[in-house]
Amino acid sequence: MTRALFLSSALLALSAGRGFAQDPRFTKDNELIRPTNYREWIYLTSGLGMSYGPNAAESTNPPFDNVFVNPSSYRSFLQTGKWPDKTIFILEIRASTGHGSINRAGHFQTGLVAVEAAVKDEARFPEKWAYFSLGGPSAPRNSAKAFPKQECFSCHNKNAAVENTFVQFYPTLLEVAQAKGTLNASYPRDVPAPGK
Amino acid sequence: MTRALFLSSALLALSAGRGFAQDPRFTKDNELIRPTNYREWIYLTSGLGMSYGPNAAESTNPPFDNVFVNPSSYRSFLQTGKWPDKTIFILEIRASTGHGSINRAGHFQTGLVAVEAAVKDEARFPEKWAYFSLGGPSAPRNSAKAFPKQECFSCHNKNAAVENTFVQFYPTLLEVAQAKGTLNASYPRDVPAPGK
Repeated sequence: MTRALFLSSALLALSAGRGFAQDPRFTKDNELIRPTNYREWIYLTSGLGMSYGPNAAESTNPPFDNVFVNPSSYRSFLQTGKWPDKTIFILEIRASTGHGSINRAGHFQTGLVAVEAAVKDEARFPEKWAYFSLGGPSAPRNSAKAFPKQECFSCHNKNAAVENTFVQFYPTLLEVAQAKGTLNASYPRDVPAPGK
Repeated sequence: MTRALFLSSALLALSAGRGFAQDPRFTKDNELIRPTNYREWIYLTSGLGMSYGPNAAESTNPPFDNVFVNPSSYRSFLQTGKWPDKTIFILEIRASTGHGSINRAGHFQTGLVAVEAAVKDEARFPEKWAYFSLGGPSAPRNSAKAFPKQECFSCHNKNAAVENTFVQFYPTLLEVAQAKGTLNASYPRDVPAPGK
């Protein structure tokens, strides 16, 4: 019994510390509560200065975006090529610079700019997926309301490779989705899945 | 007892799957054995097209580099600002492109280019830290010898912010090192730690 209790405590400690079974949490008003440990979740990819608009232009020090997903949903995706209910993504936006220390070209990451989230919650949201802004360092939000449908959902719904998610930009998962046959029928498949 | 066994099994499964206590493994000839699950370790940062040489130049589609560290060493660093023995870093290099799907500017990650590693093993290496190339997708290596000292060690030893590691480029850890007072005396501190 002592051993059982010890193991149980150890398991709980691991779960809490490493984001196992990290379901998204909401206030009673359906506001997403800011996750505190997303930097310990599973990393999916980073982009630099990505832009989707028709007037997209390059800039000198564009922001990086780092994408994380909760570990249990990642493991589920590897098995199925789909996202389970209660999946939560974090998009962390960071400033970039090119010069500092010994670096002479390209860009590296510096300060936090903003944190955004995407959540799949089939019972809570009519469209299943909802999107949130958790603010930047000068105005962080402990919780946030979902954006109206036209703000993020519509573009994700129209252009995403798997369900509402831009798996076309997550190279390790694009391979999984191709292997499992879970790419959306509407997805044009113009980003080839890289070989391992 | 059944409960103890169940919890014990669950704990082992979690440990194996998520890289807990992932000490670097070596062949009998001191070659580092390629870690298979580094994408589930802790993500530290990404750069795009970073270059340290005096002739560094920008290119059209420069590579991304993604840095991961084993989870137990990360947690130790958060507590102490130092790297414990048996720390292992992976530098994953990926190709980039700017155009694909709805993206119109900047860069996103595509295929794997190469995997490199840095290991702290005080008993195994006279300089404590050693560096390894585990190859790319066309010629992956299951194990690799450490580079000679002058190949990577010397530059890291001369320019690193904490021990032999380029913490100056890992914004969340640079804050920790500043708070714990563990920056190397020789580090010029010209990359300011970003606020949270």
